[in-house]
Amino acid sequence: MTSELDLRDYIRDIPDFPKPGIMYRDITPLLADGPAFKVSIECMSEPFRDANVDVIVAAEARGFIFGAPLALELNCGFVPIRKPGKLPFDTREFKYELEYGTDTLEMHVDGVSAGQNVLVVDDLLATGGTVEACVKLLEGSGANVVGCAFLIHLLALGGAERIAPQEAFSLIQY
Amino acid sequence: MTSELDLRDYIRDIPDFPKPGIMYRDITPLLADGPAFKVSIECMSEPFRDANVDVIVAAEARGFIFGAPLALELNCGFVPIRKPGKLPFDTREFKYELEYGTDTLEMHVDGVSAGQNVLVVDDLLATGGTVEACVKLLEGSGANVVGCAFLIHLLALGGAERIAPQEAFSLIQY
Repeated sequence: MTSELDLRDYIRDIPDFPKPGIMYRDITPLLADGPAFKVSIECMSEPFRDANVDVIVAAEARGFIFGAPLALELNCGFVPIRKPGKLPFDTREFKYELEYGTDTLEMHVDGVSAGQNVLVVDDLLATGGTVEACVKLLEGSGANVVGCAFLIHLLALGGAERIAPQEAFSLIQY
Repeated sequence: MTSELDLRDYIRDIPDFPKPGIMYRDITPLLADGPAFKVSIECMSEPFRDANVDVIVAAEARGFIFGAPLALELNCGFVPIRKPGKLPFDTREFKYELEYGTDTLEMHVDGVSAGQNVLVVDDLLATGGTVEACVKLLEGSGANVVGCAFLIHLLALGGAERIAPQEAFSLIQY
């Protein structure tokens, strides 16, 4: 951290959400605080300032909250990944595994181009399923994934291992 | 516009999406272009620079893409409005009318406080149902809605009338 703010102070723990036994890390107090939100975006962008990022890719909905400001911070474009049926142009669909079953996301076919440097952004790295699928899709499009950045990393859930050899950069770890 | 960029050049028209007869205004080419996205955020913030905005409120998912960067641009907080069941803390629920039936959104009970100056942001003003409901909820919480800002305003759909006396500020009109 390059700031005197301790971002962890702005995360609210909510037990048993969305189901019993889960400690949910609520980021809304951080978002509601202008300086804390600004420091988060500055710190998330820091390791990638010299990476010549062409495009930030982030999945709806919370990924947009960090992905869009990071695109402005890094002077690059923003490409949204959405749930099926939401994107109006031709899409590339990709499936990823959940605890039970699979889920599907879509990206526009012209979202990223071969050779572009792409940074994948989300609020939280947990099991890493979404990000892993996203990285594979991007690499399959010939893009160069320069990194994956998160506000929070839940260390015990295996996300870092799942997205390796990509590194998981995060500001807060539990 | 304070820039030589014509933002309209970055909007892609997609006929018959999501259903026949609808001309969908696709904002993804604008988002993918760093300079165009940056100019959009600067211009959307312009009328509100002296409004002492405390908090930006925006609804998922596309509202987040503009609301979050605007919060950073205006040095204020960001409060997300989400679909039911997504926010982990106590929420205030609000319903709004669609063409057929109703939809429901939620905001955290501590999202905004009485007396705060709030700017409501979305990518698109169409019929204005979501924004109208949002403004009512905020005013019911004692907040002071200082404005409503959009990238695009579809003039023929009655949104401006629906959110009056709030003014609809937008960068691109169709």
